[in-house]
Amino acid sequence: MKHILEKIQIILVETSHSGNIGSAARAMKTMGLSQLRLVNPLQSIDDQAIALSAGAKDVLAQTQIFDTFDEAIADCQLVVGSSARLRHLQSTLIAPRKGGKLIVEQAQQGKVAMVFGRERVGLTNDELLKCHYHLNVPTNPEYSSLNLAMAVQLISYEIRNAYLEIENLQKVENNLPLVEYPTAQALEHFFQHTEKVYKNLGFIKNDAMMPKLRRLYQRAHLETTELNILRGMLSAIEKN
Amino acid sequence: MKHILEKIQIILVETSHSGNIGSAARAMKTMGLSQLRLVNPLQSIDDQAIALSAGAKDVLAQTQIFDTFDEAIADCQLVVGSSARLRHLQSTLIAPRKGGKLIVEQAQQGKVAMVFGRERVGLTNDELLKCHYHLNVPTNPEYSSLNLAMAVQLISYEIRNAYLEIENLQKVENNLPLVEYPTAQALEHFFQHTEKVYKNLGFIKNDAMMPKLRRLYQRAHLETTELNILRGMLSAIEKN
Repeated sequence: MKHILEKIQIILVETSHSGNIGSAARAMKTMGLSQLRLVNPLQSIDDQAIALSAGAKDVLAQTQIFDTFDEAIADCQLVVGSSARLRHLQSTLIAPRKGGKLIVEQAQQGKVAMVFGRERVGLTNDELLKCHYHLNVPTNPEYSSLNLAMAVQLISYEIRNAYLEIENLQKVENNLPLVEYPTAQALEHFFQHTEKVYKNLGFIKNDAMMPKLRRLYQRAHLETTELNILRGMLSAIEKN
Repeated sequence: MKHILEKIQIILVETSHSGNIGSAARAMKTMGLSQLRLVNPLQSIDDQAIALSAGAKDVLAQTQIFDTFDEAIADCQLVVGSSARLRHLQSTLIAPRKGGKLIVEQAQQGKVAMVFGRERVGLTNDELLKCHYHLNVPTNPEYSSLNLAMAVQLISYEIRNAYLEIENLQKVENNLPLVEYPTAQALEHFFQHTEKVYKNLGFIKNDAMMPKLRRLYQRAHLETTELNILRGMLSAIEKN
């Protein structure tokens, strides 16, 4: 399964700030991604990049650097480019969730590129034309200034979500129940006990109350240990 | 519609680095969120915070600062805390997507808190117990070191996704809120009352019981009418 994530190439094009490269590496690693490619970075992988990568120095150490966009995407079967909501891209615009799914699906077969443009100006038209899809993060229209590493974080997160979905589907799951739940009968006894105790206390005077309490405790989906506590509380009242 | 986003309070507890406060503000604003609360921050909103907030200085300018966690969540009807995957929280753990949905749904009626803990150690057990749900970002188990502002970005993004979904759904529908929910403060009074009554009855003898009861009732997400019933039950015991 893990090899799927290793097929996914995060590509940063002409990044201006090395700190963003380091933060992007960290963001990737928190989501299980490890393959970073840089196209003609304006700053090298310097101390600032390494500091901000925190525990993701291994990602930086194996980062590949390319002179051109074309070389960086050459071995990829699917190329997704992050983009603003541009009118002429309308038919290929996708949301991050959809993007994560497409990327993971394709990564089961071969290498995939997820490309991020320059901090200020994004990808050029020529670069955008070389992408199969254009991924747009649905930002606040009044302030859409998403930091580069933040964008990498968000999209890596959606890639991980899509990956975990597939992983869950493929597992022949040992769904061991870790929590024990009471039977309907045990719950019924508890409700009857509750009714008796609070009728004796003069709190329950008609039939309107128990349905409300039932609804509350059913909704909570009581665990066995919790039911035992609640029954203990009723007994404590009775003994008093 | 927009007022929904204004009901959502992003709360940062004892943040060590002011830069994270600034980056969090920027992350929030890109997703349309504006309400930031700080609980006892270890650094103030300084130049570093303001620089990293970029175009979100307005969010910092109106940030509210509280001395305690309890005060910061007091007026909120739903409290979601970000958390590692802890075993004892199993029944209340939710993924970011689910969290975004719950937060936006509740924000149609009242204030909601999305709480982030300290950079290194997160939220304390006591703070976690005061949350209805515990939101866990599904990070790479081998490297789960998600930066605080990145976590704010991810969850703000899921809040925005949920918000956009509702916005799309709301055509002519007058979705009148049918259910009222209590504030965290009202819930806190109930827990204290419960503890007092059952200590008097001799049922509660140590500190192990209340966390279990809190967990149960937080999970049920008590409605106001239900809370009133439960408080009535306590009073009935006391009068006896």
